[in-house]
This record gives sequence, structure tokens and C-alpha cells, in this order.
Amino acid sequence: MRGTENLSPEAIHEEIFEMGKKARAAARALVNLDADQKNAILRAMAAELRSRSTGILAENAKDLEAGRGNGLSSAMLDRLRLDDSRLEAMADGVEQVARLADPVGDLLDEKKRPNGIKIQQVRVPIGVIGIIFESRPNVTSDAAVLCLKSGNATILRGGSEAIHSNRAICEALQAGGETEGLPSFSVQLVPFTDRGSVKEMASMDRYLDLIIPRGGRSLIETVVSLARMPVIKHYDGICHVFVDEGADLEMARLITVDSKTQKPGVCNALETLLVHEEVAEELLPELADALALRDVELRGCRLVEGILGKAVREASEEDWQTEYLDLILSIRVVGSREEAIEHINQYGSHHTDCIVTEDQRSAECFLREVDSACTFHNLSTRFSDGEEFGFGAEIGISTDKIHARGPMALRELTSYQYRVRGEGQLKDSPH
Amino acid sequence: MRGTENLSPEAIHEEIFEMGKKARAAARALVNLDADQKNAILRAMAAELRSRSTGILAENAKDLEAGRGNGLSSAMLDRLRLDDSRLEAMADGVEQVARLADPVGDLLDEKKRPNGIKIQQVRVPIGVIGIIFESRPNVTSDAAVLCLKSGNATILRGGSEAIHSNRAICEALQAGGETEGLPSFSVQLVPFTDRGSVKEMASMDRYLDLIIPRGGRSLIETVVSLARMPVIKHYDGICHVFVDEGADLEMARLITVDSKTQKPGVCNALETLLVHEEVAEELLPELADALALRDVELRGCRLVEGILGKAVREASEEDWQTEYLDLILSIRVVGSREEAIEHINQYGSHHTDCIVTEDQRSAECFLREVDSACTFHNLSTRFSDGEEFGFGAEIGISTDKIHARGPMALRELTSYQYRVRGEGQLKDSPH
Repeated sequence: MRGTENLSPEAIHEEIFEMGKKARAAARALVNLDADQKNAILRAMAAELRSRSTGILAENAKDLEAGRGNGLSSAMLDRLRLDDSRLEAMADGVEQVARLADPVGDLLDEKKRPNGIKIQQVRVPIGVIGIIFESRPNVTSDAAVLCLKSGNATILRGGSEAIHSNRAICEALQAGGETEGLPSFSVQLVPFTDRGSVKEMASMDRYLDLIIPRGGRSLIETVVSLARMPVIKHYDGICHVFVDEGADLEMARLITVDSKTQKPGVCNALETLLVHEEVAEELLPELADALALRDVELRGCRLVEGILGKAVREASEEDWQTEYLDLILSIRVVGSREEAIEHINQYGSHHTDCIVTEDQRSAECFLREVDSACTFHNLSTRFSDGEEFGFGAEIGISTDKIHARGPMALRELTSYQYRVRGEGQLKDSPH
Repeated sequence: MRGTENLSPEAIHEEIFEMGKKARAAARALVNLDADQKNAILRAMAAELRSRSTGILAENAKDLEAGRGNGLSSAMLDRLRLDDSRLEAMADGVEQVARLADPVGDLLDEKKRPNGIKIQQVRVPIGVIGIIFESRPNVTSDAAVLCLKSGNATILRGGSEAIHSNRAICEALQAGGETEGLPSFSVQLVPFTDRGSVKEMASMDRYLDLIIPRGGRSLIETVVSLARMPVIKHYDGICHVFVDEGADLEMARLITVDSKTQKPGVCNALETLLVHEEVAEELLPELADALALRDVELRGCRLVEGILGKAVREASEEDWQTEYLDLILSIRVVGSREEAIEHINQYGSHHTDCIVTEDQRSAECFLREVDSACTFHNLSTRFSDGEEFGFGAEIGISTDKIHARGPMALRELTSYQYRVRGEGQLKDSPH
């Protein structure tokens, strides 16, 4: 697509800021759409994705060809690839969002003050949201429609690998939506894919109210260090299971295996197992066998080595800080629940951590003292997910504590406004 | 107090990061205090402020002397000055916060999923909050106790003018609190007052979850451009009153005078009046007289000049973007409500804007379409305030849309956590 080689930094700046200005105007118009109008727009977007499927797949083919030329791995190519069924799933996803409840307009609080002033706290859209993402083209559609349903305009900036696909999807969404009254420029794609365009977006706090980077640590770090506006970060998931001394060990074994192996490449998969010393000798041998059956490599502390011998290699300090996203599990024996909590708060990524125990008091301490978005008692970490939480969709899992924490869906894409009604009240009584 | 002349940047870095580490440990301990414990701590803090009053006033005298030596204006010196009654008001403020409801532990949402998983969304402290502020020493106490009541540790960094006073207050709060079990290092003051210390705090995203700068635009801009963690900004208040064609003009006059003159130096004071052309000729002459009685200088658009003649000087483009904080009012005649809304969204600071009208439909449009933290109908803008909103306290008025918008008090100093309880649920059925 368009290269930036022939454009001066000033020209790139100007073009991106112009997009920002248009997005701001779109956001002002979006405030006046009610749920029915937005849902009609979303259904029209889905229809347009379907009716343009041949064109979108042709654009996707260009990306795939370029990707093969650039030596992308087969895993990367697979993430990039669209086909009829993936495109149908994308359109279906848009329709699902149309069926979700609209959070905009929700009354969060209402009171009447002694002086007669009536104060309403009402949920409103955030405004303009920037999404900066890497290769998967379905993010374009997922992110844009969640933002739209919550009343926001979006400026999307995807990776160069998917630029043709992203453009085709973005144009389909905007054009389809316009047939049902979507304001112009509600969904825009930045035509540049170099780092300079990220820098411009990050400096545009006048037009962008929030940036959500979706991608690896290096992308997020770049955005965080450049951004003048709030950034909601979805960092690693270094998730823990702690098997307490009061645990049902059969349950502990099943939860560990499920959390680690059911889908190892995702952020809510287990990375480090902590075992109370009182149950380590009983739990670990059988658990190691179950994990070996699923080809999980084990890395343990000295005490784990003492119990499992050659079935485990020694864990280094780095292991406790690593999100493997792979069939590797680090294991540490701890002397107490307090020690487990300390380990998690120090080495974890504040995403999702689970205690397995039958001791309710111990569970409650863990749930409260572990400083993570999601603290679990007796269930697989894999349930940490917007869909499983009943949100009907998810834009990511925030590891931040400000504004949105944990699974993030429509509510988390809104702000609020105080609407205050009086009858001429003054601070000073007149004359 | 301590100069930084003899310290290397590395030494400053190390000392501030060490404070961060200690604050993080304090925050972990604060999670376990219940409301009664925190209230006892707050009362002990107030008692300690009172019992140390002589020492605090002596430290304040050093700041005042230095301030006079440095040629601070009498207004600045007055803001810096403590006396018995101001110190008593400070201690009283701490006790007031003890009487407020504790938001921590509030259940925000609760549900049971079809698979039996129970999900609670619970209000929790944010963790460690950095407050960067300018001269007034009472901010030390106000900010620290609001943060503490909501379960947070604080790192405060005040201006050099008040460093002795701030240190004395901070030490009194921490020492008093410790007699009732306040964890060590819950309230810390950065001993450096140069810009380098702000830079270090802004880079410490590992230990600081949030920074709230309290001060002028230049301070906020500095923090925003440096900070890696979220910043909640309290920018200018360029507040508007729009007198619609359907307004009760007597009410419009009273609201305008009150909003402008009741306390002109604060962020919720009126700066720009917008008047519908249908009522301008009737409203403006009498209003101008009322404002003249209170020494308000008027700056108007051409149409206003046409009506008021020499009573008004011409407003420049800059006037629409200026927070006077003074007895100056800019006035513009607009052709419609839409034009008024457009003016406010373009030139305002998204703080507080009011429509005066008897037309309910027009009021509702204004309340919804003006993109500000607080939209008002028929009352003085001066009511935009945490106290008036019934929050019992206020750490500032956020002009941000993320996390906190408008008057910010205890609830806005919290985050949430999902606590999820299962009975061994797995994503894959076992074996």
C-alpha cells in the first residue's frame, strides 16, 4: 500500500492530524445515535463484509504473497490468512456485538442535593480511540465494532503485513455503516505502517482520548514511552496456580494440567506453579507424569528437583519472570501461603492467579492479597476471559489498574459525564 | 531542605526508586486494613498534626522567610502561610475524611455463570499514587489522607517554596498514623524539589500506579510528557454559560453574575458567556450594568460591541481560549444552540458548561452534546465541586475522560479486582 518513503515527516504529521480532526467530528456525531441506530449500522457493516468477501480475500492474497516473499513463518502466515469461513466468523462477530446491550446512557448514579440540585452520572462514549495492532486482520473488525457499539470513533493503525486486508475490511465497515447513517470517518485506518505514524498518533492528545496497543511487549513499550494520552496496556500473562496445603490434590492436578495445556499460547495460560511444601511430595510425582503425557517441559527450584529428580531441570531467576506461551512450566515449592503471595506479587504480571485449596480462610486471603486483575479460587486460569465472564466480547485483558482492569469489553470503552439540573441555584444569594 | 547540588543523578534515581519500593510494600500491607483501622489511623494523624503544631509552624516560618528572600508575591506568601487556624482546619479536614464511607470492598458487580463460576467485581485500592504539587502545604495533608482512606500509599513531591512545611506535615501524618498501625512508608515526601525528581517519579511505572499533578498547566504538561504511568489531569476550567433563546433572562443574569464573580480565581468560575441572538439585545445591557457594579471587564464579539458600545472591548481569538481566573468575561453572540455547543466543544476545556433555558428539549440536547465532565442546566457553574456533589471531599476536578472525570474523590482513587470462585471447573473435561 502507500509507502512513506516519498513523504516528509511534516506531510505524515499533517495527514494523521487531519484524520484525528475528522475522527473528533465523527465522535461528536456518534453521541447522538441511539442503540437501535448503532445496531442497524453494525448489521449493515456485517452485510457489507459478506458482500465484499471476494474483494477482501483478493486484498488478503496480496498480503499473503508479500508475507511469503518476506519470509514470514507459517504460523504468522496462518494468523494473516483469511478465507470464507474466517470472513464469515468476522461478520458473525459484528452481528454478535449488535446483539449486546448498549452501555451508553446507563445511569451510574443519581442524587438530589439538599439545595434541590439533581445530579446524574451518565455513561457516555470516551470519544476517539486509537488502536495500534500487529498482524491479525480480524483485530480491525473486532476493535472497530466494539468501539462503535460503545459510541466511539476509531483510528486504527495495523502492521504492514496486513495493510491490504486491513484497508479492505476498514472500508467495508465504514461504507456498510454509512448506508445506515454512520457518520463519515467513524472508522479510519492509518495508511502508514512505519514507527513514525505511531509517534504521530501518540502525540495527538487533542484528538485521541485513549490508545489501546494490541500486540507484543515491544509495541506496548513504544506506545507507553511516546503517548501523551492514556494508554490501556495488555501486557504479558504470567499466571500462577498456587496449591495450598489444604488443597484437594486431584483437583489441583486437573486445574494445573488444564491451565497449562488447554491452550498454552494465550495470556491466561499457566506459567508458574507454586506448591506448598506440605503437599509437594504427594502432589508432584503424579502431576509430573500427567504433564509429561502432554509433553510439558518442567523447570523447578531445588526442592522440586529433590522430589522429581531428572524429570525436571533447574529453574533460573529468569524463569519466574517468563511468559512461555509454550509447553513449559516452572515450579517452585513455597513454605507458606504468604510466600506464594509474595512470589506472585513480585514476579507475576498482575493478570490472573489462582489458589487451589479447601480452606476458605486461606482462599479469601489469597483472593484479596494477590494484586492481580483476576484472583481465582479452585478453577482453571483459562476462564479469565471476557466471553467466560459473560461480557459477550472482549477487546483485551488489561493489566493496568486505571480505568479498566482485567477483561475489557463495552463498559470499559466508555466514560461518564455529570448532568446536573437546577432551578437557578446560586452560590451567593442574590442581592 | 536537602539540595540536590551534591547528588549525582544516579544517587537521586536510587533514592527515589527506593522510596517507590517501600511505597509498594506499604500498599500491599494497606490492602489488609479495614475501614475502622483506617479511620483510627486518620484520627491519630489529626491528633499528631495538632500536637506538633508549634513545630510545624516553626518549619513553615522558615519557608516564609525564604519566600520573602526570594521575592515571592504577597499572594504566594499568603498561600504558603500556615497559622493556628489553618492548621486546625487541616486537622479537621483529616477527621472529616475519617467520617466518610470507605469505598474499598464495595461490590460493583456479582454474577454466577451457567458453569457455576461465581464472579465478583470488588473495589480495591489503586496501590501507590504519586502526587506532584506546587506551593500550598495543605495539599500534602489533603492528598495523603484521601489516598490513605482509599487504601493507597502516596509519594508526594511538593514545590521548593514549601519544603520545610511539607516535610513537617508529612512526618506528622506518618508518625501519628503509625501509633494506630499505619504501615511504614505509607506517606512519603520526596526530599528533592528539582525537575529531575519529577522525571524519576515519572519513569517509575514499576512502583507508581498513577500520578496526579496538582498545579498549573506547565507542571501538568511536564508530567504528561514524561510519565510512563497513567496521569489524571486537572487542566484549566474554561467554563461557559449559554443563554438560550428560551431562557428566563432574570435567571440568566443572576447565574452569569454568580458564576463569574462569586469566586473568580477558581476553575469552576465562568470565563465565556454565549448568548443566543434572539435574546442578546434584551439581556446584555442590564447584565453589563450588573457586571460593571462588580468591576468585571467585558470583551465581546462584534455583535456584542454593537449592543454594548464602549462598555466592552473587542475579544480576540485568544480570549475564547483563556482561563482568566480574574474579573474578566468574554461574551459572544451565537445564532443557535448548535453554534454554542460547537464553540464550547472547540474552545472549552471540557470542565463545566451550563445552559440557561426554559426549553427542556434544548436543555437535554445541550446536556448530552457538550463534551464536558459536567454539563449544567439552570444553575451556577460554581456548583461544580466535590463538596457540592456530596462527595465530602475532593482531590481535584479531572478534565480527563479515562478513569475519573469531573470532581474526583475517594471512589475515583480506587480500582477493582475480579475475585472468581469455582469448584474445580476446567476448560477441557478431564482425561
